[in-house]
Amino acid sequence: MAEPTDRLVEKFTTSFPFDQRLYPYDIAGSIAHCQMLAKQRIISQSEQKRIITALEQIRIELDEGRFRALPTDEDIHMAVERRLIEKIGAVGGKLHTARSRNDQVAVDLRLFLRAETDAIVSQLHALQRAFATGAKRNRTLAMPGYTHLQPAQPVLLAHHLLAYAQMLGRDIDRFRDLRKRIDVLPLGSGALAGTTFPIDRAFVARKLGFKHISENSMDAVGDRDFAVEFLAAGAIVGMHLSRFSEDLILWASQEFHFVDLPDAFATGSSIMPQKKNPDVAELVRGKSGRLFGNLMALLTTLKGLPLTYNRDLQEDKEPVFDSVDTLKASLQVLNAMLPKLRFNAARLATAATSGFTLATELADYLSTKGVPFRDAHAVVGAIVRHCLEHHIGLEDIPLVELRRFSSRFEADVTSWLSSVAAIERRRAIGGTASINIDRQLKGLGV
Amino acid sequence: MAEPTDRLVEKFTTSFPFDQRLYPYDIAGSIAHCQMLAKQRIISQSEQKRIITALEQIRIELDEGRFRALPTDEDIHMAVERRLIEKIGAVGGKLHTARSRNDQVAVDLRLFLRAETDAIVSQLHALQRAFATGAKRNRTLAMPGYTHLQPAQPVLLAHHLLAYAQMLGRDIDRFRDLRKRIDVLPLGSGALAGTTFPIDRAFVARKLGFKHISENSMDAVGDRDFAVEFLAAGAIVGMHLSRFSEDLILWASQEFHFVDLPDAFATGSSIMPQKKNPDVAELVRGKSGRLFGNLMALLTTLKGLPLTYNRDLQEDKEPVFDSVDTLKASLQVLNAMLPKLRFNAARLATAATSGFTLATELADYLSTKGVPFRDAHAVVGAIVRHCLEHHIGLEDIPLVELRRFSSRFEADVTSWLSSVAAIERRRAIGGTASINIDRQLKGLGV
Amino acid sequence: MAEPTDRLVEKFTTSFPFDQRLYPYDIAGSIAHCQMLAKQRIISQSEQKRIITALEQIRIELDEGRFRALPTDEDIHMAVERRLIEKIGAVGGKLHTARSRNDQVAVDLRLFLRAETDAIVSQLHALQRAFATGAKRNRTLAMPGYTHLQPAQPVLLAHHLLAYAQMLGRDIDRFRDLRKRIDVLPLGSGALAGTTFPIDRAFVARKLGFKHISENSMDAVGDRDFAVEFLAAGAIVGMHLSRFSEDLILWASQEFHFVDLPDAFATGSSIMPQKKNPDVAELVRGKSGRLFGNLMALLTTLKGLPLTYNRDLQEDKEPVFDSVDTLKASLQVLNAMLPKLRFNAARLATAATSGFTLATELADYLSTKGVPFRDAHAVVGAIVRHCLEHHIGLEDIPLVELRRFSSRFEADVTSWLSSVAAIERRRAIGGTASINIDRQLKGLGV
Amino acid sequence: MAEPTDRLVEKFTTSFPFDQRLYPYDIAGSIAHCQMLAKQRIISQSEQKRIITALEQIRIELDEGRFRALPTDEDIHMAVERRLIEKIGAVGGKLHTARSRNDQVAVDLRLFLRAETDAIVSQLHALQRAFATGAKRNRTLAMPGYTHLQPAQPVLLAHHLLAYAQMLGRDIDRFRDLRKRIDVLPLGSGALAGTTFPIDRAFVARKLGFKHISENSMDAVGDRDFAVEFLAAGAIVGMHLSRFSEDLILWASQEFHFVDLPDAFATGSSIMPQKKNPDVAELVRGKSGRLFGNLMALLTTLKGLPLTYNRDLQEDKEPVFDSVDTLKASLQVLNAMLPKLRFNAARLATAATSGFTLATELADYLSTKGVPFRDAHAVVGAIVRHCLEHHIGLEDIPLVELRRFSSRFEADVTSWLSSVAAIERRRAIGGTASINIDRQLKGLGV
Repeated sequence: MAEPTDRLVEKFTTSFPFDQRLYPYDIAGSIAHCQMLAKQRIISQSEQKRIITALEQIRIELDEGRFRALPTDEDIHMAVERRLIEKIGAVGGKLHTARSRNDQVAVDLRLFLRAETDAIVSQLHALQRAFATGAKRNRTLAMPGYTHLQPAQPVLLAHHLLAYAQMLGRDIDRFRDLRKRIDVLPLGSGALAGTTFPIDRAFVARKLGFKHISENSMDAVGDRDFAVEFLAAGAIVGMHLSRFSEDLILWASQEFHFVDLPDAFATGSSIMPQKKNPDVAELVRGKSGRLFGNLMALLTTLKGLPLTYNRDLQEDKEPVFDSVDTLKASLQVLNAMLPKLRFNAARLATAATSGFTLATELADYLSTKGVPFRDAHAVVGAIVRHCLEHHIGLEDIPLVELRRFSSRFEADVTSWLSSVAAIERRRAIGGTASINIDRQLKGLGV
Repeated sequence: MAEPTDRLVEKFTTSFPFDQRLYPYDIAGSIAHCQMLAKQRIISQSEQKRIITALEQIRIELDEGRFRALPTDEDIHMAVERRLIEKIGAVGGKLHTARSRNDQVAVDLRLFLRAETDAIVSQLHALQRAFATGAKRNRTLAMPGYTHLQPAQPVLLAHHLLAYAQMLGRDIDRFRDLRKRIDVLPLGSGALAGTTFPIDRAFVARKLGFKHISENSMDAVGDRDFAVEFLAAGAIVGMHLSRFSEDLILWASQEFHFVDLPDAFATGSSIMPQKKNPDVAELVRGKSGRLFGNLMALLTTLKGLPLTYNRDLQEDKEPVFDSVDTLKASLQVLNAMLPKLRFNAARLATAATSGFTLATELADYLSTKGVPFRDAHAVVGAIVRHCLEHHIGLEDIPLVELRRFSSRFEADVTSWLSSVAAIERRRAIGGTASINIDRQLKGLGV
Repeated sequence: MAEPTDRLVEKFTTSFPFDQRLYPYDIAGSIAHCQMLAKQRIISQSEQKRIITALEQIRIELDEGRFRALPTDEDIHMAVERRLIEKIGAVGGKLHTARSRNDQVAVDLRLFLRAETDAIVSQLHALQRAFATGAKRNRTLAMPGYTHLQPAQPVLLAHHLLAYAQMLGRDIDRFRDLRKRIDVLPLGSGALAGTTFPIDRAFVARKLGFKHISENSMDAVGDRDFAVEFLAAGAIVGMHLSRFSEDLILWASQEFHFVDLPDAFATGSSIMPQKKNPDVAELVRGKSGRLFGNLMALLTTLKGLPLTYNRDLQEDKEPVFDSVDTLKASLQVLNAMLPKLRFNAARLATAATSGFTLATELADYLSTKGVPFRDAHAVVGAIVRHCLEHHIGLEDIPLVELRRFSSRFEADVTSWLSSVAAIERRRAIGGTASINIDRQLKGLGV
Repeated sequence: MAEPTDRLVEKFTTSFPFDQRLYPYDIAGSIAHCQMLAKQRIISQSEQKRIITALEQIRIELDEGRFRALPTDEDIHMAVERRLIEKIGAVGGKLHTARSRNDQVAVDLRLFLRAETDAIVSQLHALQRAFATGAKRNRTLAMPGYTHLQPAQPVLLAHHLLAYAQMLGRDIDRFRDLRKRIDVLPLGSGALAGTTFPIDRAFVARKLGFKHISENSMDAVGDRDFAVEFLAAGAIVGMHLSRFSEDLILWASQEFHFVDLPDAFATGSSIMPQKKNPDVAELVRGKSGRLFGNLMALLTTLKGLPLTYNRDLQEDKEPVFDSVDTLKASLQVLNAMLPKLRFNAARLATAATSGFTLATELADYLSTKGVPFRDAHAVVGAIVRHCLEHHIGLEDIPLVELRRFSSRFEADVTSWLSSVAAIERRRAIGGTASINIDRQLKGLGV
């Protein structure tokens, strides 16, 4: 090509402004590659030494913010290589033997995502423990369980909190599963067809801690499945966190008033000092948008691409970086906030039985006394209507009155009409009885 | 409530038109539940018998298209229960003891998706085998490998086809991983809080072949993660199939002409009998849209929902059904078409070395003769420019001429200038050499 | 092509099962085309007559469900043409002169979407009027205005309802704007290049009521922008309706209890007769998912397609149909429900001033008395803290006490401490004062 | 609130790092607001003067990169206000009279998007002109028109290029339409309910050039429709550009070789100097992903939000900024590249008639000689098959041979068998004949 690249094109195509954060992985990958080249006698021991020493210096320059990028640095790989050659001359160019930018960028992204997946799994674990600890601490608080945002039956607050621990458990499993598919060495695939040099990929895999080695070079340089899968798992986490945020925003509303947000985790106004806006929860809820958007972005970019490497693939990094940062920041702030939530026991207790949430108990009572299910339901429906008319609660009706609705009611019925009783009778695995709270806490090791 | 439901609301909220396809799972779930109720003496043996007999009759009515739905049948569960009571009277109502529609619909969807996941994994395996078989059959055909849709280096067509087999292998892994998260029994969670009846969930799990039992009822009735994860895995399959379709459409174009589509899998016109439109590939490519859209749809529906069951969840089924149907139809038609593709060996061979795809070989040759990498590149660049000026290929330059560019060229250089040689030198794992084709085929059991 | 199409391919590629609903538009388009062919003497008058008579019979067959589709009917166009030829023989084939399926399907979809856009605009208007009527009927009810789901300042319920009328107004504008881009005749573009026949496109446009005629045949047969734009406008409507549904679900909750859902528009249970689940609102909220998903689906399908017609475009119809049906059903049910909502005036009034929503008024009061803004805020903050400590409201503090916080308080302060006063002072355009309710109602013609 | 905000929360909730780019609009909005306050005597003339002078200084500080942000600067609004008070003391606080951050951020985003919409419309116009100019310059070049990526009929390259000009024309219309909905002043809506101060919103609207004033404060502070609509229009532009990129990538492939990319707009390799990778087109194609993703992100964020302002709305800015930047950069680089494309006339001409693209002409010829359409098709099909068997083209058959297929062929048939003839016969509006090229160019003012 005769003409140099247009400055506009240089600016349009550069990825250095965002991919420079990959440098620790880029350099680690280069060092492992270099060691292999020396071991295979493709370069000499002394060349290896000079290259590695220089790479480690460059890493420090980058760590310390002393690295001077040039407008011609197309990406982190070229920037490091350019600097390497500045430092040690032509021998620096040998590092790129038996390698191409296509397999190099793939190994960088995999190293990055493997590390970030581990970090996120750690944070998910911590948040799961925070839910479990909150459940343990508030072990006896009853609250209304909702369907359709209408109170339905009393449950333990602990049960509600542990529902989120269950979700996070699945998130952890998902990241662990996808980690296996990240953990594959693509280096050695060359530009697309492999390399003619006698490389030892198993050696590089060991050095970089990869469990698997890619089997097909054409696939390896164009594969971004692992990134899409990461974004999909991240979108599901975002969905979970948005659901918890919604619960929290409702609970912190004046109308529910189930929880008091810690001052340090809410915003207010000088004029309304009682007001605590649940900004953190709102932002976490809102950020589900970018997590879903990033997933759609990468899927779209990959749709309909022919094999193998196409420059479109450069668009993989920003959505991945953004989802990583969003997930980590959201998990971190929730992890800090969760232990500081103070639940309003009195309000929860009152709410637990208001709205006739014990009606089901009454029907179950009749059922145990031999009344067919449908008849029991009809009887209880009539009792509730009676209560509504007289503005009283189920527990306010004297036995004699109850017996007008059904002769099967006896003195023991009163023992059924409490949220504790309703909760503790739900003992089958998964039910809200405290025996199942223990079971769940034990499963979570808390 | 005093007033009956508005007809408009009935029509707006009914899910029977689409969820009736769940009937085999709904009935299987009901039978297992009924057996458990009898075993636990919650219902009698004779009640069990009558219920199960009637359920089996209803299944046959549905199988044979004889089931008469009513406008008041809100969903498949209500429709079956309504019919059950028509058949055996009040005892039919006992089936719903210790169960709610919330855990029932969850178990139905899980049974359905588990079966469909298995079916899809089967089809993915078949397609993977079809790629492998195609690779085996065309074991020796060289073709150009592309980056940026520009020819870069010769590869084996088998290697290209096996790249897709690799992708499908990851798809299979993903479905297998997510299957574990489908394989959890939610029945027994009641409406949200569990049940007061002495049920045996482990028994039901065994009957329905579930490996796990949900641990938290509030989570279990509101959890659709498994469906989202299924849709995400399906979107990735769709992305893969759209990439292969793109390749195929390109290959079938007059300009590439790498493949001849089988007549039975293309459309043409009476007036241009030679024309074969790759409709199947185009539709498969286009259908990535609905697979991505279905994923986005369910993620959106779940975003920001408070616990536990909300009617929004009814919107889970149609995207899931559509993705299942789309995946199965696409995989089926590709499975049928793939073995019938006829590759154009002559055209592939010519293309394999046109565009100076052997330039890299020449540089590698000089490299082995001790010429430094960068110098070698410069020399070959000059040679290619020479060829371009004289409208000849690399293989057309006599040795004497070559030596004008570098004295290191010797007679053995000719042995490097063939696609076979270029391919076979790429022996490191994952490279395009035939040894790696064998390795991949062996890995796939073909 | 020698071989017939594989049955699997036939099934995979057919669009008849879903595109048959386009038949009224397909036939209308054919009749207009036929009239033009006759006018231009491309066919004879008697041919025209026979064709049109037969098309009208086919329309009736389809209207009455008597049309017998065959497995070989690829799409509605082929099905109608096939039937036409069955009816009148070879002359039926002349209808397709100077036309191709590519421009025919484009005209059908445009005619369909133009009609449905008009229908949806009508429904949006009706819903806007329903909000305005609700606002008018509840003209004097105060309620708390929320930010962050925390009560902030009293507003009129009418103002809140009219906020939705504003949103719907923008929706109407959007559909009207995009309708201009639907209203373009593509017929006459042929397969892609135009036609050699001396057709009169302006005549066809007049017959079919198209305002514009496409200027570029290659664009016209591959353009689905109008469908994407329709889906995008539909997604925004869905977002609006999901926001209103969220408000309604909150308002109908026991904790807010701002509204009583009409029995006919809620579901309940025999056992908890007081319970009214807001299923309609939940489903409308959930359906935003499919509206977003359909948009994503079609954008994805179109991404990266080369010109002109590709079979991928067949994937345009199902998302469009689904969004049309979803929008119409949601708007219809909301239109029916809205007038039946009964707001709980007492509860709204109490809530309007609880949570110190009048604190701002007190600060504004001091401001008018010359106290600098920041100082005023500090004073009121102290007063609110005092109220919180003593569990009283702002209106419960005697003047003498107030003056301890600031000597600027005078007897007239009491007139500021009501929601009515707070509301009516917000008179600037757009504020919640009733003068602006009138202004908005007038703008909406209610 | 007793405790200060947690540092983590400060970091999690700040928007200053990204919203600082709004500063020119924030300051312009503040100046107009300040002028209005003075005009309405809410502040004094001298206060006005001091505030505006200081705001203009702050703008210069920001312009020149001298503004020192603090970690407590939550957003651009707070940062500017903080600096204002540093500069001029308490009077700076008066600027915020009759204003809230909720209406302030809305006005900033609207001012920003209005300006960027204008900039993008300009660029779209420029690109449209570039396509038109390219069409004019290559006015006589024929090429194959494709359906299903199969050659179908000859068209003019100009027609193909103008198809993109048409698409861009619709994009321009869309942005113009949505601009009307951006062009609405929200300032004056206060936090949500309006303001008690006697403001003059019409004055502010005039100062800031807004054509409309929001009518409902609750709507105005929570409305982000205009941003979604912008993102949707941007997604459609992205889809168009991805389609053109796909065409360009195909045309630049060795197999098509319709175009030579300018060196300055392609990347190559030292070793394969002939290779020109279409990186710009690939990146533009890939960037459709982020444009779609941004749209999905904001739609998701808004889904299900209750009125009015919720902190989730802060998530509006990053997708909008990213789409603005992506669109502008893509349009800029395409605008620079387009005039430098060199089309390969010889190759286009050959391709125009290969693949029997003139078969339709032959059928049309017979049609004009009175042969029924279907019969004509059958005859031509037989001729093409004959050509295929004998490896000749349609134009290679002597008349005498042609007459064996149909006696209607006469000497004048040869005049039909050229791409020019085929093209020029397609004269009806929208057809590829050069008369329609002129018509389109005239419509575009080129």
